[in-house]
Amino acid sequence: MDAAEFRVKAKEVVDFIADYMETIENRRVSPDVKPGYLINAVPKDAPKDPENFEDLMKDFKEIILPGILHHQHPLFNAYFPLGHSFASVLGTMLSDGIAGISTSWAISPACTELEMVVTDWLGKLVSLPKQFLHEGGEGGGSIQGSGSECIFLALSAAKRHTLQNTVDEAPRLVAYTSCLANVCVQKACSLGSVILRQIEVDENLSLSVKALKRSIMTDKSNGLHPFFVCATVGTTSCCSFDDIYELSEVCDKENVWLHVDAAYAGCALVCPEFHYLIDGKEKISSISFNPHKWLLTTTECAVLWLKNKKPLTDCLGASATYLQHKHQAETTDFR
Amino acid sequence: MDAAEFRVKAKEVVDFIADYMETIENRRVSPDVKPGYLINAVPKDAPKDPENFEDLMKDFKEIILPGILHHQHPLFNAYFPLGHSFASVLGTMLSDGIAGISTSWAISPACTELEMVVTDWLGKLVSLPKQFLHEGGEGGGSIQGSGSECIFLALSAAKRHTLQNTVDEAPRLVAYTSCLANVCVQKACSLGSVILRQIEVDENLSLSVKALKRSIMTDKSNGLHPFFVCATVGTTSCCSFDDIYELSEVCDKENVWLHVDAAYAGCALVCPEFHYLIDGKEKISSISFNPHKWLLTTTECAVLWLKNKKPLTDCLGASATYLQHKHQAETTDFR
Repeated sequence: MDAAEFRVKAKEVVDFIADYMETIENRRVSPDVKPGYLINAVPKDAPKDPENFEDLMKDFKEIILPGILHHQHPLFNAYFPLGHSFASVLGTMLSDGIAGISTSWAISPACTELEMVVTDWLGKLVSLPKQFLHEGGEGGGSIQGSGSECIFLALSAAKRHTLQNTVDEAPRLVAYTSCLANVCVQKACSLGSVILRQIEVDENLSLSVKALKRSIMTDKSNGLHPFFVCATVGTTSCCSFDDIYELSEVCDKENVWLHVDAAYAGCALVCPEFHYLIDGKEKISSISFNPHKWLLTTTECAVLWLKNKKPLTDCLGASATYLQHKHQAETTDFR
Repeated sequence: MDAAEFRVKAKEVVDFIADYMETIENRRVSPDVKPGYLINAVPKDAPKDPENFEDLMKDFKEIILPGILHHQHPLFNAYFPLGHSFASVLGTMLSDGIAGISTSWAISPACTELEMVVTDWLGKLVSLPKQFLHEGGEGGGSIQGSGSECIFLALSAAKRHTLQNTVDEAPRLVAYTSCLANVCVQKACSLGSVILRQIEVDENLSLSVKALKRSIMTDKSNGLHPFFVCATVGTTSCCSFDDIYELSEVCDKENVWLHVDAAYAGCALVCPEFHYLIDGKEKISSISFNPHKWLLTTTECAVLWLKNKKPLTDCLGASATYLQHKHQAETTDFR
């Protein structure tokens, strides 16, 4: 496909997207297909010859769309419409259209600096303290693909920070979260090879701070090393809120990294009346939420802010001649 | 922005992308800006009012584009043009346009099944044995965001597999790679908390099999547990090739997981005359490469194939009521 053909076909795709959104209420919300429906509808091998655009669009409409859950449907009430806005689609088109790839500041300064600017903008909107901003010095935000990735990276940074600050050579690290936390906390602990305690909740369905204190005390007396608490602002199953203020006091005293997973509810923090939900934020170590959930942004856009970037860049940092550039002392290189 | 405005503006973006590609040779290949150039050119806070499309496009042209390295430029000779084709941009537009989000088969069967079909297609094109295909049974491919993620996930699966098959309660795991391997192997070992040995290369700049055997023997005699070798097909700095056949014999004998990182050179395996580069493939455990590098696919598209998916789904698997669905026994759920 050359530029001339792209001009024509891409405009047809634009109209298709607009039509889809304008008539979405005529579709069934959730797919009604059986396992294997698509596998059995397409060839077993990649076609040898290219297919024309009209046939591809026909397949898209007849094979793909019936197997899609339509998150933008006005009757989709399981969560909320997510991962979409026309403005965001334009942004992705531009980014894809120029293939702006960035593996360090030197490759594409615009990508690195724009990420710093917009994560600072967003951090300010949700009332994060200055230490969590790039303009504040040691902290800052970065864009990840999912809330799961944010939590895994926060846990990895906490692990690095703990190992750098303990005399114990092989500490048996323990993480804590509420029994209502998202499954991605289990995944992060599994990938990071640390023990996870799923703590009971109190009458508000919030992580029980009493039970947490007891669990930390028991683990310490058994020679284990508590290092990470993942609090939830907006649990997946019932939208309960952990008490960030109380947890931050406990974690501060115990020298434990406190991460706040605000995956979807964090988006609501753009409203000042909800800022109280993260009271205690000065003492947390990291926080993440997903603009692709409730802020009109196309997936994938999850943001992780750290009060101190160093433990994360330390555990992702690696040296190679092909990554070096003359401005590296003055820039942030996202890895 | 409503659908009517989207129809107009998105078509302007289409023309902009076509114009960009048709005149790219008039641009400077690499950016000539100093650190902070963009940070200092935009406001410190998010604007309170929306800006109009014309102003945004002006900013894009005047502030973003001068800070981009133009990978599609005919004089970009550092690697190869990557992460772009007009057909691929259309694919992303469609996917973004309908916001087809998938967290399990049940959410969007089309996403899961299409991923299984196309990774099987691609696996066959590069001559992977049937065990690496979904249609073959226990194995299969999945799409990840980067080669780094593929290697980290392969290492995580290897770790899980090893821990499930050893009597030692806390084995000290050791991974091996060539000193010319990409830095992402260092990152994966750092995140996975395992020891990494960077083995010397032979006269072909391939991982020295002799040195690897010596290192494994020394580690075993010191009570360590060799568990993972990451071989490279096309090293980043000089495009050397590790000898997959010889390594597969060693790993098979030592019961060590062999992953083949073919991040960019793997794309060349679509040509049958290069299939010999992965001779020994029947005995490897996993392999990955990035269609977004050399196969005309927009980032992010890296594919990881495993001979046995179970250790990976085991370490990413987590249970929660909101993930359960009635077809889960018959489907593959990518996590």
